Amino acid sequence: MLQGHQTWVFNNRPTIISAATVGGPFEAEGPLANDFDLLHGDLWLGQDSYEKAQKKMLEEACEKAIQKGGLQKQDIQFFLAGDLLNQIISSSFAARTMAMPFLGLYGACSSSMESLALGALIVNSKAGNYVLCGTVSHNGAVEKQFRYPTEYGAQKPPTAQWTATAAGVALLAAEGEGPKVTCATIGRIVDMGISDPYNMGGAMAPAAVDTITAHFRDLRINPREYDIIATGDLGRVGHEIASDLLKKHNIDIPTEIFTDCGLLIYGPNQQSEVLAGGSGCGCSAAVTYGHLLNRMKKGELRKILIVATGALLSPLSYQQKESIPCIAHAVSIVSSQ
Amino acid sequence: MLQGHQTWVFNNRPTIISAATVGGPFEAEGPLANDFDLLHGDLWLGQDSYEKAQKKMLEEACEKAIQKGGLQKQDIQFFLAGDLLNQIISSSFAARTMAMPFLGLYGACSSSMESLALGALIVNSKAGNYVLCGTVSHNGAVEKQFRYPTEYGAQKPPTAQWTATAAGVALLAAEGEGPKVTCATIGRIVDMGISDPYNMGGAMAPAAVDTITAHFRDLRINPREYDIIATGDLGRVGHEIASDLLKKHNIDIPTEIFTDCGLLIYGPNQQSEVLAGGSGCGCSAAVTYGHLLNRMKKGELRKILIVATGALLSPLSYQQKESIPCIAHAVSIVSSQ
Repeated sequence: MLQGHQTWVFNNRPTIISAATVGGPFEAEGPLANDFDLLHGDLWLGQDSYEKAQKKMLEEACEKAIQKGGLQKQDIQFFLAGDLLNQIISSSFAARTMAMPFLGLYGACSSSMESLALGALIVNSKAGNYVLCGTVSHNGAVEKQFRYPTEYGAQKPPTAQWTATAAGVALLAAEGEGPKVTCATIGRIVDMGISDPYNMGGAMAPAAVDTITAHFRDLRINPREYDIIATGDLGRVGHEIASDLLKKHNIDIPTEIFTDCGLLIYGPNQQSEVLAGGSGCGCSAAVTYGHLLNRMKKGELRKILIVATGALLSPLSYQQKESIPCIAHAVSIVSSQ
Repeated sequence: MLQGHQTWVFNNRPTIISAATVGGPFEAEGPLANDFDLLHGDLWLGQDSYEKAQKKMLEEACEKAIQKGGLQKQDIQFFLAGDLLNQIISSSFAARTMAMPFLGLYGACSSSMESLALGALIVNSKAGNYVLCGTVSHNGAVEKQFRYPTEYGAQKPPTAQWTATAAGVALLAAEGEGPKVTCATIGRIVDMGISDPYNMGGAMAPAAVDTITAHFRDLRINPREYDIIATGDLGRVGHEIASDLLKKHNIDIPTEIFTDCGLLIYGPNQQSEVLAGGSGCGCSAAVTYGHLLNRMKKGELRKILIVATGALLSPLSYQQKESIPCIAHAVSIVSSQ
């Protein structure tokens, strides 16, 4: 199963038999609105805190994915999830509602592909027949956690990104119809000394490039194998840095196939708020499990590589003058058609 | 590999080829002092914060385990770790130092066995030949994170537990000499409505019992298969509750084999400070990878079951009047002798 240094090849074809995405009001104004299963008109979801709203979104995405898969909660063996709140409370509390054996993960925004990679490993190893993998972020909850409560209206520099209010969940199965998870490259920590939490894209770009490089080295394949290589979420600043670094590493990814989930989720009409692009673990999860899987279903994409990036800082590590360790995990998904 | 609902059986005999533990000054005064590879005379380890000291301890345990295994850093394919600090910074920053592909986990004090279970899955599936699994806690850093800075000298009720200053790391390999990881039971969230962060043992006991029950149901074996069944870390209060609940579930674990890592790590001389017992993810990791593996080596124990428990609260979920969702993951280890 291990190929090269850090890549898993899944020969038993773990299958995404269903997926579900939930978005907030701002996501509903974006270009991918039609790709969400459920969009909320306000940020509260009838809850009395943003944190509880974040948990609720993950629960909704889980329930929707199970329903679309034609299954019941009790059919699922394992739930793998993580999120950006301290002690991943959204995931743990959603796991309480789902009442499934639970493996909590933390990889910041890379949690989306960390959970999919580990979920695929479980299914591929016959350690589970049905595994639910997901993550969530909420603009109000996450901004408060990492920067300032959004109610302050703090100004941000143009390198800052907009935390998506979104949840994305994939239901993996040992058999069935749907796209197959074929490989996963687990990333190393890369830290280039950036300590500015308003420039996550710049901090994470080298980690994305490290994992992309490892992926092609381990598998001995060419970037042109993929119809899309999407990082998540570098935004505009990080995407440009990653493109430059890849050229320096002599990895030739054609511009038309290299994109970023943080660039896809919002449109030009949202630019003044979004600044450098979308972010938050829900961003790459929702773009992948909504938009990109839908494009696969339509036959527009056959094989995609998602490189979810995570900035592994905490507000405390920032206060203690530490730089930002970053990571990226890559997972490839192939259409069954 | 999956047996029953939630148990993995590892047929390829993932082997703990080495393990290492690091402790603090208070642990050096306890009955297991001789089981630590490295004991520190003060809480600072030459660092300028408790958080950095916590990271340093995990790094030391990793380095020691690799050295004892006769390997080099670059031989290790994956590092699986988690800890109690927000955004698991000790683990992520140690992963930066170790420069290995990293999978961040969060299961509070259950992180010790969550990482061992997933590490064993990776090795068993031939998705990695050498995998490092570990966790750490530091009294000063964790108490500050979850309750009050220790410098305040806040009084605690007798149900409170003492966060261990300890790190424990196991190095798993596909081949070699050492105890074998034979099974793992992944726990569900159990929440009985307890919301008092000074009574973690009471909150976690039902989760431990749920996982123990699942373990014996899935494997259709008897508790007497084991020489020791050690929860971690319920402390005195939780241990009594768990013992009572097991009786109610008609699971007959003889008193002499049912113990708790939080009861083993400190002695009667430390009772006035320890109160109900030890806790923190480093507690079960250090007791297992130090004391219990040493007893296996001496031939005193042949087969053990470690049931690491985690209280998945955050200070914020407590402030928002949520109860404490709890979880437990069980891993069985068999002596190679």
